[in-house]
Amino acid sequence: MRVSQLFTKTSKTAPGDEVSKNAQLLIRAGFIHKEMAGVYDYLPLGKIVLNKVIDVIREEMDAIGGNELSLTALQQKDVWEASGRWDDKVMDVWFKTKLANGSELGLAPTHEEPLTKLMKSFISSYKDLPVYPYQFQIKFRNELRSKSGLMRGREFWMKDLYSFSRDQAEHDAFYERISEAYDRVYARLGLGDITFKTFASGGSFAKYSHEFQTLSSVGEDKIYVHKGKNIAINEEVYNDEVLASLGITKDELVEETAVEVGNIFTLGTKYSDALNLNFTDEDGVSKPVVMGSYGIGPSRVMGLIAEHFSDDKGLVWPENVAPAKVYLVRIGAEQAIAHADELYDELMAKGVDVLYDDRDERPGTKFADAELMGIPYRVTVSDRLIEAGQYEFTPRTGGDTTLLTRDELLDKLN
Amino acid sequence: MRVSQLFTKTSKTAPGDEVSKNAQLLIRAGFIHKEMAGVYDYLPLGKIVLNKVIDVIREEMDAIGGNELSLTALQQKDVWEASGRWDDKVMDVWFKTKLANGSELGLAPTHEEPLTKLMKSFISSYKDLPVYPYQFQIKFRNELRSKSGLMRGREFWMKDLYSFSRDQAEHDAFYERISEAYDRVYARLGLGDITFKTFASGGSFAKYSHEFQTLSSVGEDKIYVHKGKNIAINEEVYNDEVLASLGITKDELVEETAVEVGNIFTLGTKYSDALNLNFTDEDGVSKPVVMGSYGIGPSRVMGLIAEHFSDDKGLVWPENVAPAKVYLVRIGAEQAIAHADELYDELMAKGVDVLYDDRDERPGTKFADAELMGIPYRVTVSDRLIEAGQYEFTPRTGGDTTLLTRDELLDKLN
Repeated sequence: MRVSQLFTKTSKTAPGDEVSKNAQLLIRAGFIHKEMAGVYDYLPLGKIVLNKVIDVIREEMDAIGGNELSLTALQQKDVWEASGRWDDKVMDVWFKTKLANGSELGLAPTHEEPLTKLMKSFISSYKDLPVYPYQFQIKFRNELRSKSGLMRGREFWMKDLYSFSRDQAEHDAFYERISEAYDRVYARLGLGDITFKTFASGGSFAKYSHEFQTLSSVGEDKIYVHKGKNIAINEEVYNDEVLASLGITKDELVEETAVEVGNIFTLGTKYSDALNLNFTDEDGVSKPVVMGSYGIGPSRVMGLIAEHFSDDKGLVWPENVAPAKVYLVRIGAEQAIAHADELYDELMAKGVDVLYDDRDERPGTKFADAELMGIPYRVTVSDRLIEAGQYEFTPRTGGDTTLLTRDELLDKLN
Repeated sequence: MRVSQLFTKTSKTAPGDEVSKNAQLLIRAGFIHKEMAGVYDYLPLGKIVLNKVIDVIREEMDAIGGNELSLTALQQKDVWEASGRWDDKVMDVWFKTKLANGSELGLAPTHEEPLTKLMKSFISSYKDLPVYPYQFQIKFRNELRSKSGLMRGREFWMKDLYSFSRDQAEHDAFYERISEAYDRVYARLGLGDITFKTFASGGSFAKYSHEFQTLSSVGEDKIYVHKGKNIAINEEVYNDEVLASLGITKDELVEETAVEVGNIFTLGTKYSDALNLNFTDEDGVSKPVVMGSYGIGPSRVMGLIAEHFSDDKGLVWPENVAPAKVYLVRIGAEQAIAHADELYDELMAKGVDVLYDDRDERPGTKFADAELMGIPYRVTVSDRLIEAGQYEFTPRTGGDTTLLTRDELLDKLN
C-alpha cells in the first residue's frame, strides 16, 4: 500500500482523556480512532492488524474441526430467561434496547444461549455429535469503567467456539486439543513466552476450566507462575488444596500481574439442561449434550501486543501481525521515484507486503512514521544509495542500519 | 468441505412464521437461522456466500481507490444532534440504549455523522483530498415490519463508501467512477441483466443521486425501465420534467417491480457544514468538503440472489457466489470411498471448491440436498461408474446428466 493513498496520518499526541498506552500509541500511529471509552474504530492499518490476528485464530480453530458461523447481536429475552441470565443483576453488562413494537431486546455480551437454542435444529442423535461451531463476533458489554484501550472494550471483537459432545470423555479429549490450539495461537502471535495456562476456578470443574494469562505490567489479574511447568494459578484459587492437587509448592511460584487473553471452560450440561438440548444415544436413551466454551478476544490481544511490543519511538509489531513487513522510504526526485516504484512493484509481486512512503515529506518525518507504525523492516532508497548500488536496511528492533546490495536485500526479505 | 463435518442439516420445512421465499429456502438449505423477524444468523454455508458477495464488492471498491476501515455500532448522541438526525421523528429506525452511567447511546443505522467527525482528524488541507474510506458493517434499523427475509433486515450487513472531495467537479468524476464500479459488482454477482441505474430524486441533486434497482416480483419499489438506454426512473420522480431532462417519453418505458440493491448519493456539504469539516485550498481559503455516500447491502443482495435464482427444487447459486462449485456425491462402500476421497483431494488441490457428501445416506437424499443447496455442478461417483471409467456430471441449471471420463470431467471443472 502507498502511504499517499492512506487517509490516515500519524500524530504527535493522543486525545487527552486516553490513559492507556496501547490506545495512545495506536491512535497516534493512525491505527484506531476513539468514539468513546472502550469503543474504537479500526482505521485501515489497524484493520489489517486485527484481521491478521483473526486469521491466525481462524486457522487454528479450523485445524481442530471448527465450523465457522455468525450469530447476531440483537437478542430476544426468552432464551436468556430460560438460563437465568436476562436479569441485569445476574449479567451486569447488558445493553438493553426495544423493538418498535415495545418488546425488550438485549445486545449479546456472549452467545451460549442463542447457540444452544440454534443447535436444537441440528442435534437429535449421537450421530450428530461432536460438533464445534465458532464465530468471530462484535460483542457488547456495558462496562462501568473502560480505561484500558483495546484491552477492555464496550464494543469489541471476540472469537468464541462452543463444543457439543456426547459425554465427558469426548469433551475432555477436545478440551485438551483446543488447549493445545490456544498454545499455538499465542506462539504465532509472538506471545508464547509470556503466556501461561492458568488454573482459574476451584470446585468441581477446576481441572477443566482455565484462563490463558499473558504477563503485563498493566494487567488487572494477579497470577502465580510456575516457569518450569509452564503453568500458573489465578489469585482466586491460590490455596493449599489447588497447590496440592498440582503437586507444587508456594516457593516454586513467582507472583506476576497479567492480562487474561483467553479462556476455556467446561460448561457440562448447564445450558443444555436449561434449553433442553438433548440427543438420543446408541441405546435409544435421551441425554443432555455436554458443552464447553472457548474464548479469545482478538481486539484485546491486539491491544496487548501493541502495549507489550513498544518502545519510546512507537509500536513494534511481531512480523505475523504487522500491517506490512517493509516500510519503504523514498528520498529524492525522478531517479529515486522510478527506482522505488520498481522495487515496490517487485516486492509486492513476490508477496512481500510493503508500506511505500511515496509522499513528498522530509526523510526524518518518514523515518519517524516508520518507527511509530512499528513496521518490522525499513528500506531506504535515495539518489546517493542508487549510485552506490545499495539500500539501507533497518530492522525495527535491534535497529542497526546496514547497507545491502539488491540481491542481499531480496534475500533478507524472502 | 465434507458434508459430514458441517453441523447443519437440510430440512423439508421452514418456520411457520417465515413468509419470504429467500429466507424459507436459505433456512431449509441450512444457510441461515432465524432469531426473530429481520434478524438472521449466518450458518457455515451462508457465511461463505455472504463472504463471496462481500469479496466482490471489496475488490471493486479497492480498484477505485477505496480505503477500508470499520466504524462502531455504538454512537454518542452529540454528533447526531449536530446533523439533526438524533431525533426519532427525523430518523425513525433508531435502536437506542444507555451506558451504565445513564448516557444515551444509539446503534448506528448509517455512518455519515461519525465518519465526517472522524475525518476532521485527517483532513485539513487540499493535499489531504480526495479520499474514499469505506466499510462493511453490521447496521441496525428498528423497522416496524420486517417480512422480506434477508431483503429487509433489522440487523444486516452494509457496505458504505463515503467520498470526500475538494469541489463539485472532483466529486462528479468520482461519482461516475463508482457508478461504473457498481455496474461491475452486479454483473459479477449475476444480476447485471436485471439491474438498472435508476433516477431516484428530483431537485437540485437529481443528476447525481441514483438507486440501483433489480427487477423482482417481490420488490417493494415500482420503476419505469428504458431497456434501450439501460436506465430506469423511480416512481417518485416519474414525471414530465424528469422525462424531458432524460430525453425520453412514457411510451418507451415499461413498468416493473424492483428491489433497491444499491444507491449513490451526492451529499454536497450537508454533513461537512453541520460538523465543520473544512479544508484550506491552494489559495489559503477555508472551504467545506464536498461529500458523497454509496451503499450496497451484501445481505440484501444475497437474499435477492437466493430469491431470484431458485426453482421448485431449491436454490440455484451463480458460480461466483456459490458456497462450492461442485457437490460430490459418493454412492457405495470401500471402492467408492477411496475413489471419491481421491477425487475430492485432487479437485481441492486444483483450487476447485468441493462440497463432498461423504455421509452414509441414500443417493436420493444426497441428490435432493445438492439441489436444495443450489451447488452449480453435481458429480457422482459409484461402483458401477468406476468400473466403466466414468462420472455422472449434472449442472444445477439445464440439468441433463452426462457421463464423462476423468479427463473430460477435469476439463469441465477447470
